[in-house]
Amino acid sequence: MTFPVVGMVGGGQLARMTHEAGIPLGLKFKLLSDTPQDSAAQVVSEVVIGDYRDLDTLRAFAQGCDVITFDHEHVPTEHLRALEADGIPVRPGPDALVHAQDKGVMRARLTEIGAPCPRNRIVSDPADAAAFAEEVGGFPVILKTVRGGYDGKGVWVVRSEADAADPFRAGVPVLAEEKVDFVRELAANIVRSPHGQAVAYPVVESIQVDGVCDTVIAPAPDLSEELAGEAQQLALRIAAELDVVGHLAVELFETRGPDGKPGILVNELAMRPHNSGHWTQDGAITSQFANHVRAVLDLPLGDPRPRAPWTVMCNVLGGGYPDMYQAYLHCMARDPQLKIHMYGKDVKPGRKVGHVNTYGDDLADVRERARHAADYLRGTITE
Amino acid sequence: MTFPVVGMVGGGQLARMTHEAGIPLGLKFKLLSDTPQDSAAQVVSEVVIGDYRDLDTLRAFAQGCDVITFDHEHVPTEHLRALEADGIPVRPGPDALVHAQDKGVMRARLTEIGAPCPRNRIVSDPADAAAFAEEVGGFPVILKTVRGGYDGKGVWVVRSEADAADPFRAGVPVLAEEKVDFVRELAANIVRSPHGQAVAYPVVESIQVDGVCDTVIAPAPDLSEELAGEAQQLALRIAAELDVVGHLAVELFETRGPDGKPGILVNELAMRPHNSGHWTQDGAITSQFANHVRAVLDLPLGDPRPRAPWTVMCNVLGGGYPDMYQAYLHCMARDPQLKIHMYGKDVKPGRKVGHVNTYGDDLADVRERARHAADYLRGTITE
Repeated sequence: MTFPVVGMVGGGQLARMTHEAGIPLGLKFKLLSDTPQDSAAQVVSEVVIGDYRDLDTLRAFAQGCDVITFDHEHVPTEHLRALEADGIPVRPGPDALVHAQDKGVMRARLTEIGAPCPRNRIVSDPADAAAFAEEVGGFPVILKTVRGGYDGKGVWVVRSEADAADPFRAGVPVLAEEKVDFVRELAANIVRSPHGQAVAYPVVESIQVDGVCDTVIAPAPDLSEELAGEAQQLALRIAAELDVVGHLAVELFETRGPDGKPGILVNELAMRPHNSGHWTQDGAITSQFANHVRAVLDLPLGDPRPRAPWTVMCNVLGGGYPDMYQAYLHCMARDPQLKIHMYGKDVKPGRKVGHVNTYGDDLADVRERARHAADYLRGTITE
Repeated sequence: MTFPVVGMVGGGQLARMTHEAGIPLGLKFKLLSDTPQDSAAQVVSEVVIGDYRDLDTLRAFAQGCDVITFDHEHVPTEHLRALEADGIPVRPGPDALVHAQDKGVMRARLTEIGAPCPRNRIVSDPADAAAFAEEVGGFPVILKTVRGGYDGKGVWVVRSEADAADPFRAGVPVLAEEKVDFVRELAANIVRSPHGQAVAYPVVESIQVDGVCDTVIAPAPDLSEELAGEAQQLALRIAAELDVVGHLAVELFETRGPDGKPGILVNELAMRPHNSGHWTQDGAITSQFANHVRAVLDLPLGDPRPRAPWTVMCNVLGGGYPDMYQAYLHCMARDPQLKIHMYGKDVKPGRKVGHVNTYGDDLADVRERARHAADYLRGTITE
């Protein structure tokens, strides 16, 4: 057994940060990227440029890799099965990954194992969506294409039957879900290895703006130990039942029952390092990226505990500056403790081009510092 | 002003770890490496293979770099001047770097600025070395070739005139120094930027075995605040006087005067990230590598303060295992908080192939964990 080669499919920022985490581990990293300009392709030594939808490309890429893992969940299931048939370990495997690829499969399986979900079913047309709305107490309801969505794309809040035409245009099955009256969003991040070892990170609060993750607070403030434990147990159980290997993010709604009792419902699953876990780079003993790599190689996992009472992550979205360097310099000067993570991506308005982490003892201060830096980099504030 | 390109000369582990630290900063990194197998060349996207001793190679490499910095101190001074004449910022610059390249120049300049040094002078032959010994109270004395030494190479403890022949064989000037009866070795690490901002890391204790750094304890245990402050002030003053840009390690002897009063003497200078600063990767808010990069780009520096009461680094030397992967797996399983840093280098007995960092509240525990992992990886213990 020698230091292995990790094959990463996809050249986005998750691959970039996984490579960063793999360097101290002494691993060899091979990247399949769409273009040489992709975020990860800029910083990795061994890059293959190619299309992950092409099986021959995937097969050639997988030669010499000890394991294949992913920056995204878009590789066709049948290609992953073909790689497995070739004898290449694929982690997470296709049978697990399909639950992060297809929201219909995910809901059916979660319901089967008794994981709490919003009421949902596949709907066939706008009239069927209206029928579903009636079943759950009326519009609005959520419609989602079962495949292809992310960051709010592929998701519609529908207020009437007439409103429900758009989701069906893509020709992809459409899942209807009740619109949950949630208190806030949480995420339970865990990492699981092939031999079944698993670690659970503290449950975080995730704040979305316009359907895009904006701020993550670790741990989620004022979350009872009981509910936090329940969320972690749920994520661990989902991972075990679905045989997930690597990082699993379970995005949750925190709800209040009619009796005022808090509860959780599963919103989405992601089987890769996840935006709600970026805080771990500076806020946990072992980052989600390091633990994802350790898991897919079946190495013992690292300690997931936090290093500071509070860590806050804010995403940096493209805004007014085509080049953020001056703003970045300003942020470093203002806050010498700020941890900036830039992805090397061209700035486009609204595009995630980086994130910042801050940590400390005082949540209000930690949060203000992250908020300020993200807003300053975006250009929405100038002082 | 856009995100700049850092040109790194030398493909060793310091370049590897500087690249790792540069990824989140969003920087572009270009490497000049002797071979594609070098530690850093394995993990960097843009690598030029070439000989840093060849000016044309250096000049071609420097094209498109916004700044040139170094993994080692071996680039000829006249080449650095030529790059500067071409308009490429070289940091640290040749006039500073010569003090880390030539121990004779270093001693002369430190004496000039009143920095405390062991008594020393250039000696011309074994008889002159014997004369020097007489001046300082007799043998043994230390002889060093003024250029080319590292990790104990190029250094002799000489006990007689007959013993003093070896150092002169290389045809390089030889510096004689009194053999200091030191209590222990310390290192004061600071980082300084072109606009004169500087940060000082906590002073560490550095323990050598057979002339090679073995263990670093941060901060140095039982060091008085007064002496720690004196060491930091000394390092900052040396950096300012010599116009150092980037990381400066001042290796120090801690001494006791006849009155029992503690003091310090400068042993060596290094102008690049240094082994005595590896603990900062996991133990400080900003690592030496991140701050070195920030300094050479004249970006504001990051907070150098420690994140834990104690951090211990132990070097991993090559030993009994040609492949350390099984031992590495064992170490991860034994200590989920262990931070392993492997350099991707072939294992040769005694060669530095990685290091481990541990941190926590209890020095004895932190030290035992680092010691155990380093010994286990080397194969000197098996349980």
